[in-house]
Amino acid sequence: MKVAFIGLGNMGTPMAQNLIRAGHDVTVWNRTPAKAEPLKSQGAKLAKSAGEAAKGAEIAITMLADDNAVESAVLHSEGVAEVLPKGALHVSMSTISVALSRKLAEEHRERGQHYMTAPVFGRPEAAEAAKLFIAAAGEKSAVERAMPVLEAMGQRVFVMGDKPEMANVVKLTGNFMIATVIESLGEAVALARKYNVDAHTYIEFLTNSLFAAPVYKTYGGLIADEKYKPAGFRIRLGLKDMRLAIAAAEGVDAALPLASMIRDHMLTAIARGMEDMDWSATAKLAAENAGLR
Amino acid sequence: MKVAFIGLGNMGTPMAQNLIRAGHDVTVWNRTPAKAEPLKSQGAKLAKSAGEAAKGAEIAITMLADDNAVESAVLHSEGVAEVLPKGALHVSMSTISVALSRKLAEEHRERGQHYMTAPVFGRPEAAEAAKLFIAAAGEKSAVERAMPVLEAMGQRVFVMGDKPEMANVVKLTGNFMIATVIESLGEAVALARKYNVDAHTYIEFLTNSLFAAPVYKTYGGLIADEKYKPAGFRIRLGLKDMRLAIAAAEGVDAALPLASMIRDHMLTAIARGMEDMDWSATAKLAAENAGLR
Amino acid sequence: MKVAFIGLGNMGTPMAQNLIRAGHDVTVWNRTPAKAEPLKSQGAKLAKSAGEAAKGAEIAITMLADDNAVESAVLHSEGVAEVLPKGALHVSMSTISVALSRKLAEEHRERGQHYMTAPVFGRPEAAEAAKLFIAAAGEKSAVERAMPVLEAMGQRVFVMGDKPEMANVVKLTGNFMIATVIESLGEAVALARKYNVDAHTYIEFLTNSLFAAPVYKTYGGLIADEKYKPAGFRIRLGLKDMRLAIAAAEGVDAALPLASMIRDHMLTAIARGMEDMDWSATAKLAAENAGLR
Amino acid sequence: MKVAFIGLGNMGTPMAQNLIRAGHDVTVWNRTPAKAEPLKSQGAKLAKSAGEAAKGAEIAITMLADDNAVESAVLHSEGVAEVLPKGALHVSMSTISVALSRKLAEEHRERGQHYMTAPVFGRPEAAEAAKLFIAAAGEKSAVERAMPVLEAMGQRVFVMGDKPEMANVVKLTGNFMIATVIESLGEAVALARKYNVDAHTYIEFLTNSLFAAPVYKTYGGLIADEKYKPAGFRIRLGLKDMRLAIAAAEGVDAALPLASMIRDHMLTAIARGMEDMDWSATAKLAAENAGLR
Repeated sequence: MKVAFIGLGNMGTPMAQNLIRAGHDVTVWNRTPAKAEPLKSQGAKLAKSAGEAAKGAEIAITMLADDNAVESAVLHSEGVAEVLPKGALHVSMSTISVALSRKLAEEHRERGQHYMTAPVFGRPEAAEAAKLFIAAAGEKSAVERAMPVLEAMGQRVFVMGDKPEMANVVKLTGNFMIATVIESLGEAVALARKYNVDAHTYIEFLTNSLFAAPVYKTYGGLIADEKYKPAGFRIRLGLKDMRLAIAAAEGVDAALPLASMIRDHMLTAIARGMEDMDWSATAKLAAENAGLR
Repeated sequence: MKVAFIGLGNMGTPMAQNLIRAGHDVTVWNRTPAKAEPLKSQGAKLAKSAGEAAKGAEIAITMLADDNAVESAVLHSEGVAEVLPKGALHVSMSTISVALSRKLAEEHRERGQHYMTAPVFGRPEAAEAAKLFIAAAGEKSAVERAMPVLEAMGQRVFVMGDKPEMANVVKLTGNFMIATVIESLGEAVALARKYNVDAHTYIEFLTNSLFAAPVYKTYGGLIADEKYKPAGFRIRLGLKDMRLAIAAAEGVDAALPLASMIRDHMLTAIARGMEDMDWSATAKLAAENAGLR
Repeated sequence: MKVAFIGLGNMGTPMAQNLIRAGHDVTVWNRTPAKAEPLKSQGAKLAKSAGEAAKGAEIAITMLADDNAVESAVLHSEGVAEVLPKGALHVSMSTISVALSRKLAEEHRERGQHYMTAPVFGRPEAAEAAKLFIAAAGEKSAVERAMPVLEAMGQRVFVMGDKPEMANVVKLTGNFMIATVIESLGEAVALARKYNVDAHTYIEFLTNSLFAAPVYKTYGGLIADEKYKPAGFRIRLGLKDMRLAIAAAEGVDAALPLASMIRDHMLTAIARGMEDMDWSATAKLAAENAGLR
Repeated sequence: MKVAFIGLGNMGTPMAQNLIRAGHDVTVWNRTPAKAEPLKSQGAKLAKSAGEAAKGAEIAITMLADDNAVESAVLHSEGVAEVLPKGALHVSMSTISVALSRKLAEEHRERGQHYMTAPVFGRPEAAEAAKLFIAAAGEKSAVERAMPVLEAMGQRVFVMGDKPEMANVVKLTGNFMIATVIESLGEAVALARKYNVDAHTYIEFLTNSLFAAPVYKTYGGLIADEKYKPAGFRIRLGLKDMRLAIAAAEGVDAALPLASMIRDHMLTAIARGMEDMDWSATAKLAAENAGLR
């Protein structure tokens, strides 16, 4: 299929590579062109703008950092929305707000284009191995059309519903749930340490009994090691995602009290000097708040 | 080994049975004697009091509902502490407070007896299958002595440290972490439902991607089914455990803000009529608070 | 002085009247023109747009509902910013976000106009009696120039600093503090009632001993009477102000945990059917959460 | 009247002095006898134990630090309950738990004695000036009997109801409300300071407009001055009172979410080294959490 792939960060690059490997005709664009270069030898065409990439595409995929980046690539003049052929499909895979997702749906509808969402769960290594989990949402025909492309990037695609914003909500609540795991580990490890329980022994116990899931192993290990740098996912990005989850909830008159608390802890961690750290640094805050160190 | 087993609830009964099966010489006691009867035919001796059961025992195990039940069985006149032979070992497997655990350690020390803790994680089915996870703590020699007995009841024994209260802290923080899973699922499912995402589809996604741990499957299923009765673990017992975790933290000048929030949600759920329900009913509260139903 | 007064709600109308009474040359505008009519007989000129009102003014005052209303009146084409004479002063008295206040400052600066803020505290009766409390901020010369106008509307003007956003922060934190009073009264009264303490007796005690301030009397009375309708200040407006306070804090990397909690309670109250009520309805939520009624 | 006054701390001493001045026949006792000495020359009799003071008394007043001190003075052998004449009245003025207050009521009832509560609001200077606010609760006849004695110590007595625990709840919620004032001031001042608003200017504004109550002036001043030592009321005592308020609420299946949050902030402040400070040090925590200093 003729695919435009927009956004070549740590996640986007391996995702685009998997599309090339799967035999799709891929044109890529990235704000910093240097990141696009290596894909050329692998068979990608390089575009000079997001709009140029989308020209003539059947499917345009956006995998960008945040709302601003997506708006700028899609909605500005000569952006994706202006250029994408009638009947073509925009698959938004970025972690964006419900509000922007609704706006994109509207803009594409007005132009006779299709729009769906397919945010991903997984780290760069999972992206490389085409092992991402993908939550897709949109009209049935759109999702079906995108399926071969999505399956080239992920190990499993879950269809969440027929409104694009549904998968955005799934992505945002998923990140909220990971943040909750981190917060609970942070508080529990701090308390265990106050009672002189060794943090590694404690995590070893948790992750080999009730909490034998990768997310507990990954973050439990970081917290036991007190290794908050380099950041796998920066705390300010975590803060942004909590803000988006809270906004998504406010949009339907619902509170997420746990997300509010975690958001406040993230802000406090940043204010107290942990801005450069991983979002698991809320565990460092919990330890400091317990008087450790 | 000559073992006294005190407390034959849903958990205690299969645990005692596994000890009998493993060839130990087991004397049992339960406040309601009818529950002890069936064990007789399986080879247990029945005692008329906790103290009588402990008479001549090498190891006395308590597996009781709460602090009061343990105090009453162990510290009252003619209780376990008074009767247990010098040099014998009390293994406290109940979920009790750090404060009581310290008091028990002191009382046994004064009498020349040994004391350790070995609280368990798992449901009655895991107890039957000898698949419990056991967190043990106490002096090395005590833990080694108890090991064959513990291994007859659990699939794995994790040694948390040399002070008995350490395993109590592990148990209490473990329950706190489960409560956190429930709270996060409750808030996330409520939000997903507000966006018309099907709760089962949502849980299916979570538990087959990032959160593929039994605790998410068990509680995710209950929450998607909105099946809060009959209670597997009553919300008032969950509330008690949050209170004990918070008290354990206060004992070392630490806060557990997430536990405080969950405790308040449990109290609110009870006040609003969910007293008979499972502790996962905090998810029902989250749904009501989001205006669902 | 030649004054444009933009926004004639419950607060704006009496404020404009006081300016007329003080002898100023006042041109008014309101989105719904009917509200402007009565002021004509009192000596005001009526303008057909915000921009028209600002034409030739020395001071343009905006007293509008929210950010959107202010942006629309000031920043749209032919709005206040476009029309206001060079050297003239815009006094923003609305409760708006720090972000918008900064933007306004920038826009006016670029056009050679002056900008300051002067949000007010007080209810419509206080506005009528020219008894408002006013928090002013901006360049010293601007504040001095506006002083006679401000003093015609309030009983006292407090100068908070030389950056316009400072008074916005004071207004937003002031509303946050009032919301805190409501929340604390709500929780305390609910608990007192659970112990069969009469709510009026309780409030009588509080407001005649430690908490003898009008804000406690006003809201304590409403809560004891359980009189949440008609709304003096709608809960959705309170919610908006909490959101703005939280955003102001996030803008400088600070959390306001108490505001987060109150915001969540407001959202929950709205979700549970209290949307038409006064913002003191968080006390009704507290009562329901305690199982009262 | 023949009065036993038990507990001569910063509050008890001036209260007892006012009773002597009012012409009552006062016998005092204090655990540290040196504190009782000065009262001798003012006309008090000194007792060697709480029980001895209560011997033959018509009214026994306890004004002690906490539950333990009250239990030890009243319920131990040869304590007040054992010695107080049948028909005499125990007036508990200490800040104690609802649970203990109920227990005292029961113990006195069994012995044919009367029991009521009359906790006080005010600082030592108010006690000296007989300007305390007193919340009284108990059977009507008991309250009437105590009235002349209470009026000798306070500026006003508010009768809260006929069950003694009612006034304990009023005292505990009153302290909770003061703690809320401190917390809200702490968060608001921190935010104002982040925007370079001068803390004193800010407090000057608040306490001369909406929040013109002594409690705001007192604590607003301390917070603007960042003067958390010497402690007027130690943070650990504040923590104890939050715990009692939360326990009183839990006793009737109610949550006090705001009290939970403040309690956690107090614990965190203590863990982070503010143990010696005034309970207004939660404002110092708020400032640190905002990255100030």
